[in-house]
Amino acid sequence: MISKIYNTSLSLLTDLYQITMSYGYWKKNIHLREANFSVFFRKNPFDSGYAVCCGLELIIDYLNNLKFSESDIKYLKTLRADNGKKLFEEKFLKFLKTFKFSCDVEAVEEGRVIFANEPILNVRGPIYQCQLVESAIINIFNFNTLIATKASRMRYSAKNDSILEFGLRRAQGVDGSLSASRASYVGGSSKTSNVLAGKLFNIPVSGTHSHSWVLAFDNELESFKEYAEIMPNNCILLVDTFDTLHGVENAILVAKEMEERGKKLLGIRIDSGDLAYLSKITRSKLDESGLQYVKIVASNDLDEFLIESLKSQKSKISVWGIGTKLVTAYDNPSLGAVYKITSMKNSKGKWQRKIKLSEQKIKINNPGINQIIRYSKNGLFRGDMIYEKNNILKRFKMIDPNDSTRSKLFNDSFSKEKLLTKIFNKGKLRYKVPSLDKIKSKLSKDLMMLDDSHKRLKNPHYYPVGIEENLFLEKKKMILKLRG
Amino acid sequence: MISKIYNTSLSLLTDLYQITMSYGYWKKNIHLREANFSVFFRKNPFDSGYAVCCGLELIIDYLNNLKFSESDIKYLKTLRADNGKKLFEEKFLKFLKTFKFSCDVEAVEEGRVIFANEPILNVRGPIYQCQLVESAIINIFNFNTLIATKASRMRYSAKNDSILEFGLRRAQGVDGSLSASRASYVGGSSKTSNVLAGKLFNIPVSGTHSHSWVLAFDNELESFKEYAEIMPNNCILLVDTFDTLHGVENAILVAKEMEERGKKLLGIRIDSGDLAYLSKITRSKLDESGLQYVKIVASNDLDEFLIESLKSQKSKISVWGIGTKLVTAYDNPSLGAVYKITSMKNSKGKWQRKIKLSEQKIKINNPGINQIIRYSKNGLFRGDMIYEKNNILKRFKMIDPNDSTRSKLFNDSFSKEKLLTKIFNKGKLRYKVPSLDKIKSKLSKDLMMLDDSHKRLKNPHYYPVGIEENLFLEKKKMILKLRG
Repeated sequence: MISKIYNTSLSLLTDLYQITMSYGYWKKNIHLREANFSVFFRKNPFDSGYAVCCGLELIIDYLNNLKFSESDIKYLKTLRADNGKKLFEEKFLKFLKTFKFSCDVEAVEEGRVIFANEPILNVRGPIYQCQLVESAIINIFNFNTLIATKASRMRYSAKNDSILEFGLRRAQGVDGSLSASRASYVGGSSKTSNVLAGKLFNIPVSGTHSHSWVLAFDNELESFKEYAEIMPNNCILLVDTFDTLHGVENAILVAKEMEERGKKLLGIRIDSGDLAYLSKITRSKLDESGLQYVKIVASNDLDEFLIESLKSQKSKISVWGIGTKLVTAYDNPSLGAVYKITSMKNSKGKWQRKIKLSEQKIKINNPGINQIIRYSKNGLFRGDMIYEKNNILKRFKMIDPNDSTRSKLFNDSFSKEKLLTKIFNKGKLRYKVPSLDKIKSKLSKDLMMLDDSHKRLKNPHYYPVGIEENLFLEKKKMILKLRG
Repeated sequence: MISKIYNTSLSLLTDLYQITMSYGYWKKNIHLREANFSVFFRKNPFDSGYAVCCGLELIIDYLNNLKFSESDIKYLKTLRADNGKKLFEEKFLKFLKTFKFSCDVEAVEEGRVIFANEPILNVRGPIYQCQLVESAIINIFNFNTLIATKASRMRYSAKNDSILEFGLRRAQGVDGSLSASRASYVGGSSKTSNVLAGKLFNIPVSGTHSHSWVLAFDNELESFKEYAEIMPNNCILLVDTFDTLHGVENAILVAKEMEERGKKLLGIRIDSGDLAYLSKITRSKLDESGLQYVKIVASNDLDEFLIESLKSQKSKISVWGIGTKLVTAYDNPSLGAVYKITSMKNSKGKWQRKIKLSEQKIKINNPGINQIIRYSKNGLFRGDMIYEKNNILKRFKMIDPNDSTRSKLFNDSFSKEKLLTKIFNKGKLRYKVPSLDKIKSKLSKDLMMLDDSHKRLKNPHYYPVGIEENLFLEKKKMILKLRG
């Protein structure tokens, strides 16, 4: 997908320090030593009870097409330090030209519900490769997961109504719109206005007319009549160019004319003003005219809280057009996932756990090469346990990392599922990317298994994510040792 | 630039309704009738006193390379209404294949300070073309102007310190990062960590090492020594992997060793904890060791307010590494510029002003084909007046659109400058795109001419933007007539 969109090699879509560090490892001749890096985020976005995993297909596509082009190497050759000295030796650049991604990757599949502090994606292989791919992987994961989560919250508040994603004009750049359309669709919108996203990702597209159509004619009624004649099968009339309720009356006239021709007006769109009040009046006017089938589409800076509020006010909106607040994740526009080294082979080829302390506790990572087990019972997810793949003696007992006096035991009455799936094996793709519709239904299934208390918009109940006891003790030992 | 990045045609980077409306105009045979559309935003972002115009080069590139590819047409052919009927006739799609952009475009140049309600860009030509390009133009303008403005605010708070843009990993998608790096550079950062942005836009790049470099070695001191040996000309040491102040001591040891080899440590980077406190201690430790030249780089979710606060606490930071809050414009992640029809030729070829009322006063546009005059006096900008290009009798008197009892007179003692510049003439590019460095210096010049009261971060003084008297009266007349 990403390779379909971009005509430039994306190997340089990285932070310079990834290349300076790779250079350093290469100079020290430890660049081929294997390391494990894990992606995780420290806080669910939007104070949500969960997040929706998204972006893996794009990450796969990025990794699968990764190489340094001639012009990339040429560019790197031009780079200088502040004192004018070349940053990189020629020999290193020659080495980069031979770059071929050869790491193992495991990841949580798209459409799964995920939680803070879980390892969502592991990259394991030559340390210089792990570094080079860090920035792009986090960029893609962060944004896609953020938007899928936002869309899922809007879907929750809209209940059975449709959500149309209209965000292109307000999105953060071209890809900000394209990825957002894809992630919104995964998370809960049913159509996008973005035609290119429709084409690239096979998402249904939607759109009728804007205010400028109305203004291109002598009056609103004429413009409605013309639109209905030209687009009788896809006619939603925007009624607020001059005066909403007068616009509704014009739309009703046109709807009745359409009926005479055996056609049906699909809907009326309101884009300003008091949506609760206007939608109720509009609904009764429509119903009085026997137009019960005409839907009311609302737009105007909507988000999940406004949808919830409008629904609680018994507004008569059944299709929600959402742009800005969805595609920019307006109230929390960045997820903040990180990618940390958690293990590295020593010179003897033995894996060594790695941990970073930092001044802030929240910035300390889980050491080791980890997997997640999700426990379920009676049709509900009950807890996720992070454990070391090769150290699983006590995996049934998990400790709350925020309060080590709290623990949870999972006996055999729980069903278990491992969340991290093999994606690449030594650089070879070993995973069949599912269709977006399959991903959507994965999410529906997961959300059915997630207790309602974790899904509510405000102050959701905390879903238990813990660390398996052995791993917990190991981590504690490492921290104490480092603190001296 | 955009055409360098994307390998797909961008003609479908539009909302579906632009195509359905174009189809409608074509069916009605009014598609070639000329219209004028204007881009404007209704509120400065961040409650800022101004915005920084940015993105024109990308818009030009988009327009200059616009065509419908075979696969675009093939895709449009597949589109169906909900009832299964084809959305578009073949004949229309054949017509689209011949699309060649033939509009006039005027725009405010990049790097100029601009204000809410000003027409920033006019597109004028066959109405169906004006519609088709709307969504992409606003998308690009919105995001680039937003980020350039944010960067300019950070530059303001950082005074003479450098700002490094580190946002790739937290940006909204691939282009969210690339455009943000470019716009940040325009607005005030001096380097980016994003190597691809460096390559594409010729922006200086910056970067040294991350925590994983430290963790790849047996201890911090060893990792610092190795880095300093390998990258003696580009050495900034990150000191908070385990304990910041201990890290500073290690960095000092290495700096002294570097001195013996005739090299200099460029800086120390602190990425967590209390930056005010830690930077002061670090500075005195460095100074005590005769390392006055070593800079302190700080990062960790910084924004303009944190920079201002840290500076007022006399923190000893002289380089600011900024990511998330800059590249996502975190506290106001969308600008919300719109693109409205303001004039259209009638069937007799005479221009007719167009106005949209809406339920919200703020959504009413200025009718007509407009230009902006900026008045200056004594080295300061004094006010911007919007006027109709062909109706300029009273242009020296401007009315405050928010309070018509307030007006301002500009006599001959003011110098005048027209802000909208010719960019395309009937689809032909008539503008030489300046280098980013030229754009940067345009901005510096403009900011020097902008009174300090408009630049402060909180509650800036309102810069006068008014409507020339004739246009004001015309607009009022149209509103009254439409309201009945």
